Amino acid sequence: MRNEFEFINNMKSLYSLDLVGDDCAVLPQNSTHDLLITSDMLVEDVDFSLKWTDPETLGHKALAVSLSDIAAMGGSPEFALLSIAVSEKLWKTDFLDRFYQSWHSIAQNYGVELAGGDISRVPDRLVIDSTVLGSVPKGRAIWRSGARPGDGIYVSGSLGGAAAGLAILEKGDREPHELIEKQLKPTPQISLGKQLQQFHLATAMIDVSDGLGSDLSHICESSGVGAIIRAERVPIHPSIRSVASIDEELQWALSGGEDFELLFTADPDHFAAASIKNVTQIGEITGERGRVDIEADGQMQSLGSIGFRHF
Amino acid sequence: MRNEFEFINNMKSLYSLDLVGDDCAVLPQNSTHDLLITSDMLVEDVDFSLKWTDPETLGHKALAVSLSDIAAMGGSPEFALLSIAVSEKLWKTDFLDRFYQSWHSIAQNYGVELAGGDISRVPDRLVIDSTVLGSVPKGRAIWRSGARPGDGIYVSGSLGGAAAGLAILEKGDREPHELIEKQLKPTPQISLGKQLQQFHLATAMIDVSDGLGSDLSHICESSGVGAIIRAERVPIHPSIRSVASIDEELQWALSGGEDFELLFTADPDHFAAASIKNVTQIGEITGERGRVDIEADGQMQSLGSIGFRHF
Repeated sequence: MRNEFEFINNMKSLYSLDLVGDDCAVLPQNSTHDLLITSDMLVEDVDFSLKWTDPETLGHKALAVSLSDIAAMGGSPEFALLSIAVSEKLWKTDFLDRFYQSWHSIAQNYGVELAGGDISRVPDRLVIDSTVLGSVPKGRAIWRSGARPGDGIYVSGSLGGAAAGLAILEKGDREPHELIEKQLKPTPQISLGKQLQQFHLATAMIDVSDGLGSDLSHICESSGVGAIIRAERVPIHPSIRSVASIDEELQWALSGGEDFELLFTADPDHFAAASIKNVTQIGEITGERGRVDIEADGQMQSLGSIGFRHF
Repeated sequence: MRNEFEFINNMKSLYSLDLVGDDCAVLPQNSTHDLLITSDMLVEDVDFSLKWTDPETLGHKALAVSLSDIAAMGGSPEFALLSIAVSEKLWKTDFLDRFYQSWHSIAQNYGVELAGGDISRVPDRLVIDSTVLGSVPKGRAIWRSGARPGDGIYVSGSLGGAAAGLAILEKGDREPHELIEKQLKPTPQISLGKQLQQFHLATAMIDVSDGLGSDLSHICESSGVGAIIRAERVPIHPSIRSVASIDEELQWALSGGEDFELLFTADPDHFAAASIKNVTQIGEITGERGRVDIEADGQMQSLGSIGFRHF
């Protein structure tokens, strides 16, 4: 069965959809800025569960995932649209009021104003589609396609925390925990994305939403390059050790997804001179188009495009 | 139970959401144009049924409903985002390929390019969120709030056809029929909307999506005015007579919705001089704030805000 990336690539080439395929579409706005736009659909029991997500955390996450796409282009978020399909049962409660109060709170933190959307009824599962518009200085959006052989590969913060948090939630544990927080209330890396854009540091960028392997493969495919990841350099979330084996923690860091950190490539000398904090070099871009390897304990293995897929 | 309009109005005032509440949000773009943006969510078994909608008609309608919102501001559509939550069962078929082929065909007719979106899995019902961006000369968007006492009330084309088509489909009849076409493949009134904008003709405008009563009430609320509709002037779809009683046909025309015609107000002298075709004056705006009446057979009745609501 084709996966969603194959379907989208097929549509792109069939209909010449040149604007489709990065974290955001980049559209003409005015003489100084380009317009960024992105949509993310969240479906109950597929992308979240109301068993462990309250309206407040869902309101936060619904906006955060789209802000993360704006961050991955080096842009600033400005406006949002929110479309919600909700059951009559949930409609009768204060769920949407609490959802929106929390949405509004994160929106204010990032300077985002709600501009519209839609409300529909659904017989059962909640569906949310979040659209965010942003802005980036003209010609300065950071695409997935700019990685060059010899570039370093960098990631912000740490990985695997969101996947570990999900594993804790799926076991039924609801005690407050740093890893659960990482899963339910991700922080979009808007400041870092802007910094990388303003100082011309990143050659290619994506946010870690599907998993390091999958997201790095997107950069390599778009850029026509390959990559080698050094396993011992991958920054694993410091709290994972208490809940996972060593094998599990690397697996979560490589394929877990939803950390919403920034994964980017840069000229290593150029980047080293900039002293950007809280970023780790985890590997190098190679000229071997389409080949994504990981080196662990002196052994080289294919990392491939492991990560979350809907299909 | 509060309906969705009450919920949205409450959110608007609680959080000062000044951009929310018209057919599109109007955002700053550049020195000559404003940006328009609108989202519409379509849920299977609520907004459409796969019993009588094939992928091609759904692809058409998913875009047409949002184009109609751009038309209602007097704008030109330019870009779209399409988010789809689809079951694995449907994913395995050619449903989405056929859906998108038809979507692309109407998009080309109206000069719209797909810029992005999302694909998610859903356990059962198909959900589509369609976002369209458009453009309008700066300061020239036609709002719901500009109607003035003494303005005429006008509607394009005819009403009730989509509701009659739905009634035919719900009876199980699948023979090709003009009314079924009106329900399944609405025509967005982009040219008329632009014409009214370019010639400064309309003082307020909305598209007829929920029903004449409901949509006219939105204009009256936003404008702080009232309205009188003359029943005998309401242009009823010419093919309705064969499938409905006289009472039913007026009911469908007043509350059926989904005709996606343009409902607007204008200075009657100014409008008469412009000789716009295929538009009928159906009443007048009054100074009686919030009062929407219909005059039929010499009797005045409250029309209220009858029409489609999700809640």
